[in-house]
Amino acid sequence: MSDRDTRHQQAMRKLKSHVDEKVANATEQRGLLLVFTGNGKGKTTAAWGTVTRALGYGYKVGVVQFIKGLWECGERERLVEDANLEVAIMATGFTWDTQNREADTQACQAVWADAERLLADPDVYLVVLDEITYMLKFGYLDIATLTRALNNRPSEQTVIITGRNAHRELVEMADTVTEMQEVRHAFNNGLQARRGIDF
Amino acid sequence: MSDRDTRHQQAMRKLKSHVDEKVANATEQRGLLLVFTGNGKGKTTAAWGTVTRALGYGYKVGVVQFIKGLWECGERERLVEDANLEVAIMATGFTWDTQNREADTQACQAVWADAERLLADPDVYLVVLDEITYMLKFGYLDIATLTRALNNRPSEQTVIITGRNAHRELVEMADTVTEMQEVRHAFNNGLQARRGIDF
Repeated sequence: MSDRDTRHQQAMRKLKSHVDEKVANATEQRGLLLVFTGNGKGKTTAAWGTVTRALGYGYKVGVVQFIKGLWECGERERLVEDANLEVAIMATGFTWDTQNREADTQACQAVWADAERLLADPDVYLVVLDEITYMLKFGYLDIATLTRALNNRPSEQTVIITGRNAHRELVEMADTVTEMQEVRHAFNNGLQARRGIDF
Repeated sequence: MSDRDTRHQQAMRKLKSHVDEKVANATEQRGLLLVFTGNGKGKTTAAWGTVTRALGYGYKVGVVQFIKGLWECGERERLVEDANLEVAIMATGFTWDTQNREADTQACQAVWADAERLLADPDVYLVVLDEITYMLKFGYLDIATLTRALNNRPSEQTVIITGRNAHRELVEMADTVTEMQEVRHAFNNGLQARRGIDF
């Protein structure tokens, strides 16, 4: 075996023993709270990737979309015929299109009722609260209401929260937090959003 | 209208005009190169979310997985019956399990042939090169070979590259780069990876 091969094998063994140790230490089993935040592309997309994954094993999934827009439709189209998927969408356009605080608060509260029902249902394995961070920021939904529902949810249920500027309390509660940081975005360099890629 | 409502409406109008301006400036239409990198959870998941999205519109998609493991199976299960999806998987376990540089290089080159074919096919709307960054890092694949295939691909084709430590040349070439940063990961706090969520 060459020197390079030997060094490679040693490096891989070290990596493997590191991974094995982590696996051995991971003994707790329960539903997780995941937060995908930051200003970069991929938050809602990663949530839908997880939805696809959970549906692949036959689990029940609920997705609540707090900002309905032109974006993020392809995955709904692909998955919506699945009997294990329920999608609830806030009955308003992008909030900066409607520009009406009272109507948006009502629309948020109406779809939050769906979220609360899903968060109380032990048959639902995964709940996605897509873009809910903006509801907190705009004052359409109370952080205490959200954290209470999260704390009281069935122990086997995983919840994914997406959106920029996740509330400090959510970040502290969460088991896994990923900050998706924009290094570069095509949209800012004059490239049009693409069907099937961006929405 | 209350002062608070008026302030909210003004803030939303400003946000809307900012978004409208960006939309107006985005005039170029072509396939994109997206890089999902960083040490956080969500890179492969976001890629699969985009795959689901593109399939939702009936586009052809190719996924090449350069590290085959126990992870990331639920989404394959869910989507693999779709005639528009082709999945090619590197015929080896996690590289730190095999620890054999020569065998891994051969396995990489074999699946790279599938990637090259997909990257040359104008009927394929989206190609995912999942975890390919590690192939460059371990020296199983040459950066020049990869960038040549990317530069020569059909202009309407979008490519997603995932993996930690994306090569500088890839970051420079890319239209959109997201750095998924780990703020916290459940696995490191003793929580087991969950079926349908983590894999």
